[in-house]
Amino acid sequence: MSKKMHVAIVGATGAVGIEMMKVLEKRKFPVGKLTLLASARSAGKTLTFAGKEVTVQELKEDSFAGVNVALFSAGASISRQFAAAAVKAGAVVVDNSSAFRMDDKVPLVVPEINGGDITTNSGIIANPNCTTAITLMALWPLHQAFRVKRIIASSYQAVSGTGAQAIEELRQQVAAIEAGQPVEKKVYPHQIAFNVLPHVDSFLDTGYTKEEMKMQNEGRRIMHHPTFKASVTCVRVPVYRAHSVAVTAEFERPVDLMKAREVLGRAPGLEVVDDPANARYPLPLNCAEQDDCQVGRLRYDCAVDNALAFWVAGDQLLKGAALNAVQIAEKI
Amino acid sequence: MSKKMHVAIVGATGAVGIEMMKVLEKRKFPVGKLTLLASARSAGKTLTFAGKEVTVQELKEDSFAGVNVALFSAGASISRQFAAAAVKAGAVVVDNSSAFRMDDKVPLVVPEINGGDITTNSGIIANPNCTTAITLMALWPLHQAFRVKRIIASSYQAVSGTGAQAIEELRQQVAAIEAGQPVEKKVYPHQIAFNVLPHVDSFLDTGYTKEEMKMQNEGRRIMHHPTFKASVTCVRVPVYRAHSVAVTAEFERPVDLMKAREVLGRAPGLEVVDDPANARYPLPLNCAEQDDCQVGRLRYDCAVDNALAFWVAGDQLLKGAALNAVQIAEKI
Repeated sequence: MSKKMHVAIVGATGAVGIEMMKVLEKRKFPVGKLTLLASARSAGKTLTFAGKEVTVQELKEDSFAGVNVALFSAGASISRQFAAAAVKAGAVVVDNSSAFRMDDKVPLVVPEINGGDITTNSGIIANPNCTTAITLMALWPLHQAFRVKRIIASSYQAVSGTGAQAIEELRQQVAAIEAGQPVEKKVYPHQIAFNVLPHVDSFLDTGYTKEEMKMQNEGRRIMHHPTFKASVTCVRVPVYRAHSVAVTAEFERPVDLMKAREVLGRAPGLEVVDDPANARYPLPLNCAEQDDCQVGRLRYDCAVDNALAFWVAGDQLLKGAALNAVQIAEKI
Repeated sequence: MSKKMHVAIVGATGAVGIEMMKVLEKRKFPVGKLTLLASARSAGKTLTFAGKEVTVQELKEDSFAGVNVALFSAGASISRQFAAAAVKAGAVVVDNSSAFRMDDKVPLVVPEINGGDITTNSGIIANPNCTTAITLMALWPLHQAFRVKRIIASSYQAVSGTGAQAIEELRQQVAAIEAGQPVEKKVYPHQIAFNVLPHVDSFLDTGYTKEEMKMQNEGRRIMHHPTFKASVTCVRVPVYRAHSVAVTAEFERPVDLMKAREVLGRAPGLEVVDDPANARYPLPLNCAEQDDCQVGRLRYDCAVDNALAFWVAGDQLLKGAALNAVQIAEKI
């Protein structure tokens, strides 16, 4: 990757877009030119990249001339509308939305797990759901060792997963409560400050949310494991940044705690933080702005045979989104 | 219960003690005399009960003369030290601590589930762990219908479960963060504001915490179900009041969602709040200061055969503690 690339970020002013710029800079991605794209509303704003001001432009069909890599993070409908134009202009699209994740022609990639899938792309590579990516960072090494059959998981998801407006909503609600003023709700249907909402993404007829089913649907594609099952309850919590997930994972081959620790300890992009006697375990606050995910609270599950319980946390703007997208771009 | 009773509250100035007074008043418990007991540090404070000021006295061995019912909520060591003195003085002890919960001679009671067990007491009746009580309020009707085999659960526990100091700690940390000042930690080993801690109670060698094992251990006694299994991850969240629990429950007999809704709808002390299309599901904020627990997000589990997933929330100072204790006292 000695050649300098022309990189475009679609959704540049969003929570993930901002992180994408930081990650490109931090990882010294060979950016020759950076094009920042967003809605008409954000066009004209300036953002700083590598010490230089870059003006945000309005996203249009013809925005991608000369672009080598287009990082999309502006929601599924924008991706559906503009990804083809980017590909047509010669760019490789790394899409952070759910638009193409279940498309057989589009590889869905966590580089540490199935980086090889990138080679068979036809212009678009999908970045997985954040909670799924973070959970799989810990599950994948265990799957390789013991072959996972199913997981039951509950998430503790930060508001930044919803976007910049949700960060502001939590901040404003907390301030309003402190000041004894009424709480305003714009982003979430209920107060998120000092509350938890068992509602992330929209509901399906089964009673699960779309977000909850991503773990199974995307997990199957990423792990190349078509019979993998996952029952998840996704919950929004008043944390600014980094998701956490409590997992019980049942395996086909006999599990061994020592071996589990060993394979997790060797896994790239993952840190084992597991010394409960000294109150050391993964915390979202400690994972915020960290590239590596953290796993801990590892134990034999006491209710399910041949199963492990664990707790994994990670910065969903990084490993769950911007970092993973740039890692994919690096591999292209 | 026409006779007026002499009621003592041990731990009267704590978060649960305060609620006990409110519950006694609200439920028109026939209190003839109220004795408030606490540590020497709190002695001399006055609290208001039924419009009258009551002075808190220092808890001593001889504090229980003439007391009919002693509600203990000052921690297990205080219960171990003073419960016998209360029983010797002729009082029936309802103990909210973990001191006697696993003692075969002491009934462990949720009145809606095993109220009949109260009759065989020898002076002490134990009040269950708060997370356990709230979860069982939803699990018990399902168990009666389908016979539960095991559950896998993750909790979202409010700071008031730790006590009055923890409520203050969250408040102070939020204010400090708002003001850009450093965060002080006294009650929890890590910042609780805008964070979640997978650490409630102390750790066992198995990697589970004591709190996490209460669900199985206490659940077996309360449901008279010695083979019940429960794998739980208990997590403290920055919520002031009311616990929530995400549960996957596997049953022996064939489960049916319609029947599940029906039995939950008929269960005393439980409200079904389950209309996800209109964003209606149990929220800790809505359960705060409510007697009834709420259950929702009910669905067939997609990863475990013959299992249901659901979300239950309840005020752990009420159903999880003070309300349940007073309900027990009413049945004595």
